[in-house]
Amino acid sequence: MTQANFASVYEDAFPFWNEIPDTDKDYICQNSSVFTYPMGTNVHDGDECSGVILVRCGSLRVYMLSENGKDITLYRLHEGDICMLSASCVLDAITFDVFIDADKDSECYSISGPAFAAVSKRNPCIKIFALEIAVSRFSDVMWVMQQILFMSMDKRLAIFLLDESARTNSDLILLTHEQIARYIGSAREVVSRMLKYFSNEGIVEVSRKGIKILNRKHLRQLTS
Amino acid sequence: MTQANFASVYEDAFPFWNEIPDTDKDYICQNSSVFTYPMGTNVHDGDECSGVILVRCGSLRVYMLSENGKDITLYRLHEGDICMLSASCVLDAITFDVFIDADKDSECYSISGPAFAAVSKRNPCIKIFALEIAVSRFSDVMWVMQQILFMSMDKRLAIFLLDESARTNSDLILLTHEQIARYIGSAREVVSRMLKYFSNEGIVEVSRKGIKILNRKHLRQLTS
Repeated sequence: MTQANFASVYEDAFPFWNEIPDTDKDYICQNSSVFTYPMGTNVHDGDECSGVILVRCGSLRVYMLSENGKDITLYRLHEGDICMLSASCVLDAITFDVFIDADKDSECYSISGPAFAAVSKRNPCIKIFALEIAVSRFSDVMWVMQQILFMSMDKRLAIFLLDESARTNSDLILLTHEQIARYIGSAREVVSRMLKYFSNEGIVEVSRKGIKILNRKHLRQLTS
Repeated sequence: MTQANFASVYEDAFPFWNEIPDTDKDYICQNSSVFTYPMGTNVHDGDECSGVILVRCGSLRVYMLSENGKDITLYRLHEGDICMLSASCVLDAITFDVFIDADKDSECYSISGPAFAAVSKRNPCIKIFALEIAVSRFSDVMWVMQQILFMSMDKRLAIFLLDESARTNSDLILLTHEQIARYIGSAREVVSRMLKYFSNEGIVEVSRKGIKILNRKHLRQLTS
C-alpha cells in the first residue's frame, strides 16, 4: 500500500482533508496501515488504543462486554464508516472501553492514535471532525439504550428484521437467533420464542437457511 | 443581571473565554438569561432547544423518558457543570432528546442556542469545548448503561449509597425509595426489597428520615 493510495481514499473519507497542510497529510499517510480481519475475529479489545479505523469493506460490530461475558451491540460500522471509539487515546473525554469484532470478512485502514492526536492538535478542523463522529455515535447508543430499556421485545425484533431486510435489500435474513439476540441486546431463547410466535402468526417463516419475512405489513404494525 | 456579571462568571466557567474576541464575549452575555427552578420543576423538555445551561447552584437531573412514562437517570449536573444536551440545536450530531428536571432549588444561566451556535461557528475553540462536553457525557451514559445492563441490583444499590454518602459527606441518605429507584434505573419495589435485605444484614438502617449507613465495610464488599 503506497502513501498515494491512502491519500486518495482519505480525500473522500475525511471532509477536513483539503483544509490541512500537505505535511500533515503525509504524516497521516505515513502512520496508516491496512488490516484484514476474517469474519469473527477481534479488531479492538477494550482499553488498548487501536487507532482511528476506516472501514474499507466488510462490517464491524462495536459492543460492550460485561465481566461475565454478556455483550450488547452498540452499533455496526459499514464501508466508509469511521470509528473513533477504538482510539480513546485521541479523545480524552472518552473514558469507557468498547470491543470491536469483524462481522464479515473486512478490510480496514487504521491511523495510529498518537499520530492522529498530534495532527488534530495542530488542526482544529480534525479535532472537531473526530469529536463530531464520537457525538453522533453517542446518538446511536442512546437509541440502543432506549430500545433495550423501554421497548417491548416483539417491537424490537420487528424493527430489527425490517431494518436488516432494508439494509440487505432481501426478504431473507441470514442470521442465527444467537446473532439476532446479540444485535438487539437479548437472549437467544427469547429471540427463538418470539420468532416462533411470529411464525405461528404467519409473519415470518423460520428455517435452517434463515428467517423469511412473509407478512411485511403485519411486521410493520408491530413497530408502531 | 448585568452583562459584566455574566462575563465574570463565564471567565471561570469557559476555558475558551480568553481566546475569543470581545465582540463575541459581549454577544454571548447579551444572549444570556438567569433562570431559577424550584425543586421538582422541569428545566428542559425533549426536543425544544433550551440553550446551553450553566448550573450556578442546586442540582439538575438529566433523564430519558419512554412513551409510557418510565424514566432512567443519565447523570446529574451540579454547581459549575454545563449542559450541552439541552441545546441539540447547537450540535448537529445530537439526534436524541433528553429531559431535565431540577433535583433541588436551582439557579442556572442559559445562553440561547442560536447565539451559542453562531459564536461557535466563528470560534473553533468553542465548538471543540461544546463537543468535548457532549463526549464526556457520553462516557457517563455508557457507565449508566453498563450498570443497568450488566450489574446485579445489590451491587448497583451499594454503589449508589456509597456515592451519595460521599457526595453529601453524610452517613444519612435523605432520599425516598422512589427517588433511588429512578436514579439507578430500577423500580421502587425492587429498591425497597433490596434495602430490607441490606437492613436485615445490618448494613443500613431504614427509617422515615432516610437510609443510614451502619456497616460501610460490608457495603463496600458488595460493590466489588
